[in-house]
Amino acid sequence: MLQHASDEGFVVRIGDLDLALADRKAQGHSAASTFALDAGNPEARRNEIDEADLVISMLPAFLHPEVAADAIATRTPLITPSYLSPEIAAMDQAAKDAGIPILNELGLDPGIDHLSAMQVIDELRSEGSKLTGFESYTGGLVAPESDNNPWHYKFTWNPRNVVLAGQGGSATFRMGGLNRVLPPHRLFQEVTPIDVPGAGRFEGYANRDSLAYEQIYGLQGIETLVRGTLRGDGFCGGWDALFQLGMNRDDAQLSLPEGTSWRTYTAGFAGGVGKDADRAQVRDAVAKTTGADRAALDLLDWLGLFEDDAVAPAQGSPCDILQQRLESKWALAPEDLDMIVMWHRFGYTTADGEQRVRTSHLVHIGENDTHTAMSLTVGLPLALAARMWMRGEWKGTGVTLPTSPSLYTPLLRGLAAEGIAFTENDSAL
Amino acid sequence: MLQHASDEGFVVRIGDLDLALADRKAQGHSAASTFALDAGNPEARRNEIDEADLVISMLPAFLHPEVAADAIATRTPLITPSYLSPEIAAMDQAAKDAGIPILNELGLDPGIDHLSAMQVIDELRSEGSKLTGFESYTGGLVAPESDNNPWHYKFTWNPRNVVLAGQGGSATFRMGGLNRVLPPHRLFQEVTPIDVPGAGRFEGYANRDSLAYEQIYGLQGIETLVRGTLRGDGFCGGWDALFQLGMNRDDAQLSLPEGTSWRTYTAGFAGGVGKDADRAQVRDAVAKTTGADRAALDLLDWLGLFEDDAVAPAQGSPCDILQQRLESKWALAPEDLDMIVMWHRFGYTTADGEQRVRTSHLVHIGENDTHTAMSLTVGLPLALAARMWMRGEWKGTGVTLPTSPSLYTPLLRGLAAEGIAFTENDSAL
Repeated sequence: MLQHASDEGFVVRIGDLDLALADRKAQGHSAASTFALDAGNPEARRNEIDEADLVISMLPAFLHPEVAADAIATRTPLITPSYLSPEIAAMDQAAKDAGIPILNELGLDPGIDHLSAMQVIDELRSEGSKLTGFESYTGGLVAPESDNNPWHYKFTWNPRNVVLAGQGGSATFRMGGLNRVLPPHRLFQEVTPIDVPGAGRFEGYANRDSLAYEQIYGLQGIETLVRGTLRGDGFCGGWDALFQLGMNRDDAQLSLPEGTSWRTYTAGFAGGVGKDADRAQVRDAVAKTTGADRAALDLLDWLGLFEDDAVAPAQGSPCDILQQRLESKWALAPEDLDMIVMWHRFGYTTADGEQRVRTSHLVHIGENDTHTAMSLTVGLPLALAARMWMRGEWKGTGVTLPTSPSLYTPLLRGLAAEGIAFTENDSAL
Repeated sequence: MLQHASDEGFVVRIGDLDLALADRKAQGHSAASTFALDAGNPEARRNEIDEADLVISMLPAFLHPEVAADAIATRTPLITPSYLSPEIAAMDQAAKDAGIPILNELGLDPGIDHLSAMQVIDELRSEGSKLTGFESYTGGLVAPESDNNPWHYKFTWNPRNVVLAGQGGSATFRMGGLNRVLPPHRLFQEVTPIDVPGAGRFEGYANRDSLAYEQIYGLQGIETLVRGTLRGDGFCGGWDALFQLGMNRDDAQLSLPEGTSWRTYTAGFAGGVGKDADRAQVRDAVAKTTGADRAALDLLDWLGLFEDDAVAPAQGSPCDILQQRLESKWALAPEDLDMIVMWHRFGYTTADGEQRVRTSHLVHIGENDTHTAMSLTVGLPLALAARMWMRGEWKGTGVTLPTSPSLYTPLLRGLAAEGIAFTENDSAL
């Protein structure tokens, strides 16, 4: 936004609960001004929204229904990267009456996935092909040059959300015409291996309600429909072992006896051994309880879960305790680079009955620890859409997603100009 | 309360959102009066509480912090069967200042378990013995004479709570000195077989935070400490299979294609088979996914999960759909009787160093479908404590549990007079 501020005549106002954080983002730019805002204060929030010609909100998703109500009341266009909630969906007519768009799900995932998937889906349809399958996986990972641990993972995003991964709810999807439901504790057991050209082997696991995309993308009756998350090769086996043990749970408050070792703590999740079990016994107990193979056990070993040192903190939920350990093991060093990988696969039957498969993928590596691939791919779609609105290149009203050509075509062009571009491959099945 | 109203000079006022329900409970008794009350209306609620000399609240637990605040503001003694929440615990000084008791956890479980366990614990201590283990399990079950299904279970209590069993949180407990944490999806895999004299074989599974009882019962440093729920022999294997499949989840909203059969629906949880898999293939897929043995698979079979008939309702969460099926299979017929089983085991070392074990158990069968064992065992402790207060036989103030001799001794005596009595057995280990 600031880079183009003088060309476009933008004034960018940046608000944050922490004014210093807003100031850091403003970088002293002449077109930027900053303000402190407690977004939980309805009056202050509405006043600031009223001041703007357009609002990009990066607030937590749960605040967005209130922000959307403010946008409608003040007739201020609103763009967010959050999932469209039922509360906001119900505001469609009010947004239309106010003459403003409320554009949701315009970050990376959801966001860039919508743009890139819908472009291919519409193209295949325009050629007379019929979609038979759509699979889409995205991951925020560590770049190969910074990947020096056996999990192939470092925290490039909110650690809490990573540790709670999969606990948000059961996944629904469709495979070969069969509607599937997968409870959280089995998400990391049904894993799809995915080879991304030039980037190597990954693993995808399903999440959230993929079946909702039947309607959103107009894929009624499609045989296979799954959206999920990408992780490095082997990650899911290790994470499943933690999940089976329950070491990621946030629904128990523990107060460990002083000096409890990691080995004893881990044994307490596995069961089947005494409190003085040795390292090999605890490792065996974990294998027996979780079904983990040697590679997965090695990943737990690398985290130090069978060691003698004392667990810290000794108070908190299993999730709190695991998070602290992972933050020390999966820390992104200042010189480390992150990486975004997005991969779609489309199965289709051509007008002359040929069965084919097309893949489309994006691999993007961050520039440094401020301009990460994650921040760029979440922020850029929002900024590009804001520019389109301010230029008058986009004129929608109502509650919407970026799934129409009038949005995805210019947005994908804008992303490509910034070096964020998809590569497609197409072959007979 | 009504039975003793004339002896004691009680007037019993019964409030319910549904006045007709309150009237049915009043049974036209001359000492009873009824009123309609929306407990969510703070003013109406506080006025009614202010009217009373003592309030017994059977409202849902989440309302009890507000009810307790009303009790304090109006200086009205309060008794409830709900678990003591941190919010209510924080009101201890305020209750003392108001000169009233707020007595919590006085139903069956929690409730009668506190009374009966603390009596034995205090007795053993007074003899100079040292407690080494405490295990306690309670179940609301169907009486043997009405038990005609292979799950040995019928709904004698809120079906929703039964279907959601175990999903409330991880269990913590201690076994052989090792602190254990068991995530919900493994609760039904670590099962303790329990033989109750005269009543047969049951299964116990851990629930909630058993470690909290170290402090509540003064059992610091005890080697084994677990509280849980009792089910009939074999139940946990079947329920674990449903749990592993995810058919009890309440965190996904499904909209099934019209006419989806139970067999296909079940296959959608199991995976590994196509949508047209036959009965044997789906049963095998479930066995493979869940690790269920033949007996557990037979229990699912008895529920009709591998049949051809259409799933109804076709909308809702897996929990909603399973509940409807279970309500038709596990219905308590009007002539059926329910049964409460409570079982404690105390390990202890006597003053002369002998290791012994004492068990204490209660088996109570309901009278009919109104005077069930469940309603009697939940309601009677509350009524007896209310009578003690009104008679001036109990004079505590502050937020409390029924764990002291001044409460449990007369309450257990009162229960025994109503035919609710424990049987003890004691033997060398």
